[in-house]
Amino acid sequence: MPDDDAPQYVPQSPVEYGKPPAGWRRRMYDVIFEADTPAGRRFDVALVVAILLSILVVVLDSVPRLHRDHADLLNAFEWGFTALFTVEYAARIACVQRPWRYATGFYGVIDLLAVLPSYFSLLMPGTELLLDIRILRLLRVFRIFKLTLYIEEYTRLGEALAASRRKILVFLSVVLMAILILGTIMYVVEGPKNGYTSIPVAMYWATVTMTTVGYGDITPHTNLGKAIASFMMLLGWGILAVPTGIVTAEMTLRHRAEHAGPARSERTCAACGSKGHDANARFCKDCGAAMS
Amino acid sequence: MPDDDAPQYVPQSPVEYGKPPAGWRRRMYDVIFEADTPAGRRFDVALVVAILLSILVVVLDSVPRLHRDHADLLNAFEWGFTALFTVEYAARIACVQRPWRYATGFYGVIDLLAVLPSYFSLLMPGTELLLDIRILRLLRVFRIFKLTLYIEEYTRLGEALAASRRKILVFLSVVLMAILILGTIMYVVEGPKNGYTSIPVAMYWATVTMTTVGYGDITPHTNLGKAIASFMMLLGWGILAVPTGIVTAEMTLRHRAEHAGPARSERTCAACGSKGHDANARFCKDCGAAMS
Amino acid sequence: MPDDDAPQYVPQSPVEYGKPPAGWRRRMYDVIFEADTPAGRRFDVALVVAILLSILVVVLDSVPRLHRDHADLLNAFEWGFTALFTVEYAARIACVQRPWRYATGFYGVIDLLAVLPSYFSLLMPGTELLLDIRILRLLRVFRIFKLTLYIEEYTRLGEALAASRRKILVFLSVVLMAILILGTIMYVVEGPKNGYTSIPVAMYWATVTMTTVGYGDITPHTNLGKAIASFMMLLGWGILAVPTGIVTAEMTLRHRAEHAGPARSERTCAACGSKGHDANARFCKDCGAAMS
Amino acid sequence: MPDDDAPQYVPQSPVEYGKPPAGWRRRMYDVIFEADTPAGRRFDVALVVAILLSILVVVLDSVPRLHRDHADLLNAFEWGFTALFTVEYAARIACVQRPWRYATGFYGVIDLLAVLPSYFSLLMPGTELLLDIRILRLLRVFRIFKLTLYIEEYTRLGEALAASRRKILVFLSVVLMAILILGTIMYVVEGPKNGYTSIPVAMYWATVTMTTVGYGDITPHTNLGKAIASFMMLLGWGILAVPTGIVTAEMTLRHRAEHAGPARSERTCAACGSKGHDANARFCKDCGAAMS
Repeated sequence: MPDDDAPQYVPQSPVEYGKPPAGWRRRMYDVIFEADTPAGRRFDVALVVAILLSILVVVLDSVPRLHRDHADLLNAFEWGFTALFTVEYAARIACVQRPWRYATGFYGVIDLLAVLPSYFSLLMPGTELLLDIRILRLLRVFRIFKLTLYIEEYTRLGEALAASRRKILVFLSVVLMAILILGTIMYVVEGPKNGYTSIPVAMYWATVTMTTVGYGDITPHTNLGKAIASFMMLLGWGILAVPTGIVTAEMTLRHRAEHAGPARSERTCAACGSKGHDANARFCKDCGAAMS
Repeated sequence: MPDDDAPQYVPQSPVEYGKPPAGWRRRMYDVIFEADTPAGRRFDVALVVAILLSILVVVLDSVPRLHRDHADLLNAFEWGFTALFTVEYAARIACVQRPWRYATGFYGVIDLLAVLPSYFSLLMPGTELLLDIRILRLLRVFRIFKLTLYIEEYTRLGEALAASRRKILVFLSVVLMAILILGTIMYVVEGPKNGYTSIPVAMYWATVTMTTVGYGDITPHTNLGKAIASFMMLLGWGILAVPTGIVTAEMTLRHRAEHAGPARSERTCAACGSKGHDANARFCKDCGAAMS
Repeated sequence: MPDDDAPQYVPQSPVEYGKPPAGWRRRMYDVIFEADTPAGRRFDVALVVAILLSILVVVLDSVPRLHRDHADLLNAFEWGFTALFTVEYAARIACVQRPWRYATGFYGVIDLLAVLPSYFSLLMPGTELLLDIRILRLLRVFRIFKLTLYIEEYTRLGEALAASRRKILVFLSVVLMAILILGTIMYVVEGPKNGYTSIPVAMYWATVTMTTVGYGDITPHTNLGKAIASFMMLLGWGILAVPTGIVTAEMTLRHRAEHAGPARSERTCAACGSKGHDANARFCKDCGAAMS
Repeated sequence: MPDDDAPQYVPQSPVEYGKPPAGWRRRMYDVIFEADTPAGRRFDVALVVAILLSILVVVLDSVPRLHRDHADLLNAFEWGFTALFTVEYAARIACVQRPWRYATGFYGVIDLLAVLPSYFSLLMPGTELLLDIRILRLLRVFRIFKLTLYIEEYTRLGEALAASRRKILVFLSVVLMAILILGTIMYVVEGPKNGYTSIPVAMYWATVTMTTVGYGDITPHTNLGKAIASFMMLLGWGILAVPTGIVTAEMTLRHRAEHAGPARSERTCAACGSKGHDANARFCKDCGAAMS
């Protein structure tokens, strides 16, 4: 695959929301949106901790025993975090030059959706609808992405996966065809009486088998079915070595490039035309002429 | 493994069916069989969509509830697709120079088998036989291969797997021996009373265990059996690292060759015509002439 | 790891049994023990087929229904193969110079054990003991190793695994410690009432979990147990990436060495002293002098 | 990742406990703490065997049947090992220059904790508390680490994992987010009636599914749930190819560096002292002087 169609992975810059020129809004902007000052870094770390704690509250609230015994405590925490994130949302709106652009952008919507469910629960105290809406508070987890997008390793990981994108898609389409064909064969061989009640269910079973998950909720009962299933497991393992190979090959290349330094194979000596010089070479290793 | 016995992966060319010289048959041929004109590409995309939709109808039709509640709708769709593919089959027959060669070739048979089951269901309205025959309509999925065979990534994936073919076969034979030996040992140790009713069943269990699928429909009950099974799991994981290693090693080599560019393998000596020179070679390693 | 302590993988040569100088014994020896004549190759292929068929008979004989319905047919086949392998064993004894050395060697014992069980069943017609003894006939599968040991790929695979031997042992010892420690923790946390009846059973469960087999015959029931199990699964997957890494790194290196040709980095031009020449280079790529 | 932030993996040296200058304490120190004399090596091997046997006794003692039938024998062994390790602990204290530093260090605490539980069981003969305390004897397994820390392969393995530390942490955080989000979705889709009783339980199920363990104690029952689970399995496999890729890329690089030898990184320019020259470089790439 040529490098040209490998997508550039550019993190969304907060600059597009408009950085105020000076004053308290500029100082607030630097703390809230930037991460290259001590105050900005502390704000980001505090925000990540607050988000993780608020997610923990939502998760614990879903445990029936905790919801029953500690409803008031969990509710207090929830309202505390809702207030905190509401203030933060207002501060973000207040300090950017183009608030509408922020509010309608991906992270603006996430920031809003992360606080709205709590207020909705005031308006509609019915318990049925409440559950699913409260879950929306978990969208806060996406806010962590915003803060970690600048971490180099995320970018690297994203680049490696993005570069392997087409190969992985091709591989996935082959796997889906194998799941369709082998699932259908098992549907015909085993039939509804052994749990393969329809082709979609048989395809679910084929996915469970070929990814080596193997729940065991549906298993082959006939001898022919067991033979086909054994074949599928070996095939599945063989096929599934492919994504590992794709990702590893990509990573090995990048890893070596990182250690070897960039542009090793591209530099050419103007005097003798030899190639393969190190990126930091100052003299040609073949003729000794100074490198440009 | 020397490159010589690595098989060349040449996609079956439709040219062998005979390209008509000119006229409406030539124009139809270009649209149906070729993919390098806008019309040809649009035809291919439309056909893939139609095939995927017709497969979806077959899959949904196997769900008992949908089959009962929406029988008429699914039936109508099915006849629509059958009509479409019949017209397409007739058009293919009509526009190639050697229709018999097409009709008896792999894809001609697939194209025919993809429409026949619907017509058979008219002749034999019994519901018993119908199921298995209707499943044959899923053969349409192989038609997608014909259209996607030209996609570069499929060819690459096929080449990498084909080059590792012998190693994978050797590996598979070792795995099968391990499954036979360890399955038999477990059959002796655990015996029919714990679910290991015969050596084939024990081998099915050994496959389930060594591929790390682990359904749990048959599990060891004796202490010795559990110890052997634990050993098998660790062995199985160790052994199964091998295909990943084979595929990854092959892919890493190909990946690097792609990125390193044609420098090494493409440089040709003007004097003797030999290939495979290093990018920085200044003299031909075969005849000693200066390289350009 | 230095190459010095990498073990040399030398297949056991049949020459040590003593090759007869001439006559019918020499001709028989060439057919039975050698594989480099057409007759020798045909003999080997025929023997592999006979062994595989005799194994199939043993495997099918273990299926209760087949054993009951086709006892006579399976018995006849078994005696046919026993006669065949007895004749072959006698022929091997007859044509080697040092028959005792063959008979007491690994393959001589295997060859004998592969025919003895059938004769034992004549002497002791009790059905209880019979089962386990008949299974011994499966030892024939090891005879296939003898014939396939000369196949290059087996040797390569063996070499790659042998070279990684120490790393894999180190890895295995770490895994066993993790299984011991985490299994014991789960034994304390979950206890006998949830199926973790002893530390060995808990270690069996830990192996099932960390190798991602996951039978589901024993599963954590307490919240703490589920949390620890989740941690173990992620740890297990991380740890188990290591053997894949070990084997893949070894294979990638060997793979590249195969394609680059041997001794690329070792050849030195006598004229200019440059290195990195191809194994088949006849002229120095740096100064154009003829390579020795 | 630059090499600078790769942590140096330095094994804890026993020298810090103070090596006595001469006399019986020096001779004892050399045997107990050093491994480079024959006596020191024999002591280490004997200690590893004693530790492994004492661990085996603890493990076997947890099996109810063995605990009931062989209580006296196991008890005798346990007291034998306790006496042995007590003497060894005293000897260690006696022969180092700074006994307090040893006693409060990691291995000193481990050595003490490995013998204390047996003495505690004398003081408190209650059977309830005893179980958990006796398990502490398994801490002896960590003492093996102390002895094997000097083995080169452990150090290598540790270095490879430590160098990939940040990438693995980044990967783990992505996996945990996916488990949180997909587990919550399944909690909403399947609900408590299908076994997904709370978000933590659903996250446990998501971990079981994405690591391909697949116990089958909780499985999706709705069609939508099965579709999401199938997607998760394929995603999980794809995501989990990443740690294999990370570890393999790191190992391949280290492996090649070991085999390629010091040619590239060790050559030093006699003129300017720079390093990292190619094996075939004829002029220093940093100062342009001719390379010897």
